[in-house]
Amino acid sequence: MSEIRKDPVSHTWVVISTERGKRPSDYKRKELEKISQKGCPFCEGKEFTQPTQKFAIWPGEYDEKTKQWITRVLPNKFPALKASTQFYQGEVGELYHYLAGVGGHEVLVDSRDHFDTLANMKSEQVEAVLRTYIQRYKYWRVDPRIVYVLIFKNYRHEAGASLSHPHSQLIATPIIPPRIFEELREAKEYYKMENKCIFCQMVEVELKEGSRKVFENESIVAFCPYASRFPFEIYILPKNHQAILEELDEKSIFYLTEAIQEVFKRLEKLLNDPPYNYMLHVSPLRTLGLLYYHWHFEVIPRLAMPAGFEFGGGIFINPISPEDAAKALREVDLNSQERALKS
Amino acid sequence: MSEIRKDPVSHTWVVISTERGKRPSDYKRKELEKISQKGCPFCEGKEFTQPTQKFAIWPGEYDEKTKQWITRVLPNKFPALKASTQFYQGEVGELYHYLAGVGGHEVLVDSRDHFDTLANMKSEQVEAVLRTYIQRYKYWRVDPRIVYVLIFKNYRHEAGASLSHPHSQLIATPIIPPRIFEELREAKEYYKMENKCIFCQMVEVELKEGSRKVFENESIVAFCPYASRFPFEIYILPKNHQAILEELDEKSIFYLTEAIQEVFKRLEKLLNDPPYNYMLHVSPLRTLGLLYYHWHFEVIPRLAMPAGFEFGGGIFINPISPEDAAKALREVDLNSQERALKS
Repeated sequence: MSEIRKDPVSHTWVVISTERGKRPSDYKRKELEKISQKGCPFCEGKEFTQPTQKFAIWPGEYDEKTKQWITRVLPNKFPALKASTQFYQGEVGELYHYLAGVGGHEVLVDSRDHFDTLANMKSEQVEAVLRTYIQRYKYWRVDPRIVYVLIFKNYRHEAGASLSHPHSQLIATPIIPPRIFEELREAKEYYKMENKCIFCQMVEVELKEGSRKVFENESIVAFCPYASRFPFEIYILPKNHQAILEELDEKSIFYLTEAIQEVFKRLEKLLNDPPYNYMLHVSPLRTLGLLYYHWHFEVIPRLAMPAGFEFGGGIFINPISPEDAAKALREVDLNSQERALKS
Repeated sequence: MSEIRKDPVSHTWVVISTERGKRPSDYKRKELEKISQKGCPFCEGKEFTQPTQKFAIWPGEYDEKTKQWITRVLPNKFPALKASTQFYQGEVGELYHYLAGVGGHEVLVDSRDHFDTLANMKSEQVEAVLRTYIQRYKYWRVDPRIVYVLIFKNYRHEAGASLSHPHSQLIATPIIPPRIFEELREAKEYYKMENKCIFCQMVEVELKEGSRKVFENESIVAFCPYASRFPFEIYILPKNHQAILEELDEKSIFYLTEAIQEVFKRLEKLLNDPPYNYMLHVSPLRTLGLLYYHWHFEVIPRLAMPAGFEFGGGIFINPISPEDAAKALREVDLNSQERALKS
């Protein structure tokens, strides 16, 4: 059973997803479990033990010469949303609204190598990860029930990962996620007033101002956003206007890969390989060619603990300014001896 | 330096608060520190080592007979916002907005006893905590720069507490926190259409429906909200319409205390004394007597880790339905032998 519920007094949507079949007693507080390679279901040789045979060897990216997969796509073993569900919606007590949990929840295996990270993997592997993302947007675009696809990565247990093999996740939803909805609304307002994409304006300000910039190359810029919610939060986005990731050409995939690796190498070295989440924001599936929205990665290292004030008020307290964070990231010497070890 | 910044493409507000004077290297990942009573600054005998002498013995609640404090109010040692700051506001690059970090940040010491919890403390102590909250709202109401006071509690390190002595926190802000703003907006819309407070309607539905109810007495009801973001999330609110906590009379303080202790005893026993946050939502300081807003506690046990989907999309995945969570909480036998130990 999976159901999407809307809170009547806020824009909060919740997926009630009981697929894992946990009982209340399973929530008792316990020690964090260690994550290891032993028994990892995403490693080589486990391709046929996956939940759905149909998807078991889905070649995200496939090497024709070696006949080996480069990336893979699997349905999540405990999906929050499922494509097979019949659509329905309704109301409880003239107050509460719900939808069927229609959608998709996928694991994108980012590499064969259990110890690969975005910082240390070969650049061709990062390019394969990005091509897999693009492939998945294309796949979901044809399902008329789905309006949004959110791709994200949880890295390390402290950031919500339950397995350590390098992977991303995809959730396809029948609603536009509230945070995206808000971005779209505000970006549209800005466009009406200024005749300009607000993200393009942001790129212009950040390149000119420079104090929050972490890295730039021909196509891509990475900076700590002005209102960073978290210490060392980073946005990565294209300098030219692009609303969806599919607009990337081969050359831009190369530049995006370079920017991603620079960012994660700097984070790894400065902060001792910290846990992080990143989320890829793109325009909704049904609105192609938007002039006011611009795709971007939001990277949030998980160093501070969001607590009562953040959850209660929606205001974040960030103890380091984005200007100081960006300066520290720019000053990391990636060539010095003290590189963090691969694993 | 403390500054409030608004993200240009969302309703997110961030307090950039560098009071702790941390350097970037302080964010390197490290083992969680153990919290103990040793050196606790809130325990008895430490009253005069607090940062501001003026506030050092502020009697939240004071026992006239024994001449001892019952609760205390202290300025936060590392305040996110400060009352002494001059107000200013401005714009950067015709895009970014900021405000001076004017406001207040207080620690409310909830008991003399280091090992007191809401579940195990004497009921008179919980009443003193509630009276202290009421006193603080009254205190901040006279500052014309402050529009909102958010009181919350972070319990245990995993929920963001940096000290284990029982305490709550208060942040007084020159803006209405976005989550409150949204609640007010939607509640007002509902009132326009239905001529009824949406929270009063919620109380009616929850009492009638019953499946999400955890506890009720003459004045108060506690239930798992329909769109619970987190496993075992609980709302506690008055059955009759009240917009602010100051509307509680002595009898209702007694009933609220009873409900709070029931809720936290059940959580403690069912989930092995879990980390939690709670946030007290009340109507803004400048809008007294609102007919459409209703104060409430939001209690969120910290059992699941919000990750990329939650932060990236603003959609929460909750693996247990509020109906199952409420049933498990109702079925806890508070009289059985297996009580969790006091400390």
